[in-house]
Amino acid sequence: MAYNELYQYSVVSSLMEGIGETGLPYSQLVKHGDHGLGTFRRMAGEMICLDNEVYQMKSDGSIVTIDTSNGTDVAPFAMVTRFQPSVTAKIAFDSKHGLSDVMSNLFPKTKNRYLSFRIDGLFQSVAVRTADGQRYEHEKLRELHKRQTTNEFTNVRGSLIGFRSPEFLQGVSVAGDHLHFITDERDRGGHVLDCKSEGEVQFSGSILSAVHLQLPDDDEYNEAELNLDADGIRKVEG
Amino acid sequence: MAYNELYQYSVVSSLMEGIGETGLPYSQLVKHGDHGLGTFRRMAGEMICLDNEVYQMKSDGSIVTIDTSNGTDVAPFAMVTRFQPSVTAKIAFDSKHGLSDVMSNLFPKTKNRYLSFRIDGLFQSVAVRTADGQRYEHEKLRELHKRQTTNEFTNVRGSLIGFRSPEFLQGVSVAGDHLHFITDERDRGGHVLDCKSEGEVQFSGSILSAVHLQLPDDDEYNEAELNLDADGIRKVEG
Repeated sequence: MAYNELYQYSVVSSLMEGIGETGLPYSQLVKHGDHGLGTFRRMAGEMICLDNEVYQMKSDGSIVTIDTSNGTDVAPFAMVTRFQPSVTAKIAFDSKHGLSDVMSNLFPKTKNRYLSFRIDGLFQSVAVRTADGQRYEHEKLRELHKRQTTNEFTNVRGSLIGFRSPEFLQGVSVAGDHLHFITDERDRGGHVLDCKSEGEVQFSGSILSAVHLQLPDDDEYNEAELNLDADGIRKVEG
Repeated sequence: MAYNELYQYSVVSSLMEGIGETGLPYSQLVKHGDHGLGTFRRMAGEMICLDNEVYQMKSDGSIVTIDTSNGTDVAPFAMVTRFQPSVTAKIAFDSKHGLSDVMSNLFPKTKNRYLSFRIDGLFQSVAVRTADGQRYEHEKLRELHKRQTTNEFTNVRGSLIGFRSPEFLQGVSVAGDHLHFITDERDRGGHVLDCKSEGEVQFSGSILSAVHLQLPDDDEYNEAELNLDADGIRKVEG
């Protein structure tokens, strides 16, 4: 795949419905990109992909490096790109909302396309959650959300990997900014609820206009009733 | 592109908003498929692509063969595929709704994926409409719809080219069945409102799970406020 094209496996509405038994093998996913986020079978933890590695960040706080050569892990949902930043900048922000504003200024006229971005440096705080996995088949994301583990890391060095998706593609992707975090030591991380830089951190980002959406082909997905639960997505992925 | 992958330029919500000044050159579009439908600059008529030709079916009843080698025509919206049917059948139907039922039986468990299909033969009747083009910049599709030209052809030989899109992708594509018609003589056609086969006609179709969505990159698209107008889409594309 060319640089800065989005490869997405499945749609968020499917994840919301709890379609998590099967997915794309990570060995195949990494052929489409080196920068991304997603989840694992039965939504067990949060996925982050950077620097040619894929990590599973679990709710017990442990982090597993995924074997992408011949491992058996699969992604019921994932977004990746071959990341080549077109914009780099030193930026500072005191909240996830503040970060959004900074990015909107860095990328004017992009609200109807995707962005991919990465932020490296020292963070005053990063609040994360990790999903602990489905307890029964097709448990919905709204249910998992109720018992998610949250953590706040302070004075921590690490990387944020994220995507911004257009509002009108809510349900396909997660509208707005969706980002995962991992420390430099690769020992802590999760889905970012809030974040605050310590002074300036290094931002890099690019616009994605070409989207490759792979719809699953298995009974679980094919039989699912997929409806847009915009409120639910904001709740569990916001 | 591989067989039976969907290539789509822009999204239906953009078309609804009247974003029609620019688009993908047809010379580029045809590289992605040989079977499809779409529209033209300022929504002037209906596009149908089959048998390695692209036709513009205009509201005055004329049909133009598009020069896809070095022509200047562009598609503000189009869907194409390299069509290789996996299912062929002799089918009969007495309405567009009846055709939908036949296809649902031919393709069980596909409601969350796309279908592409083609139907050739003798039709007792085919009711079509053709959009007459925007009268001012950004005129919305709902407005164009009010003065669309409709026609009913009877005892006519021709081809239907269509796509079925998942309900949850309404706004990206046209949810449900969306089909265009052209006669064997390539002298009449349009966007199909209703159709009735004369006895049995030849059906061929395939499932599409890989979707390549190219989002436009021009000021007109980038500045558009894109919202899902599901009711409007059903009205103008149903």
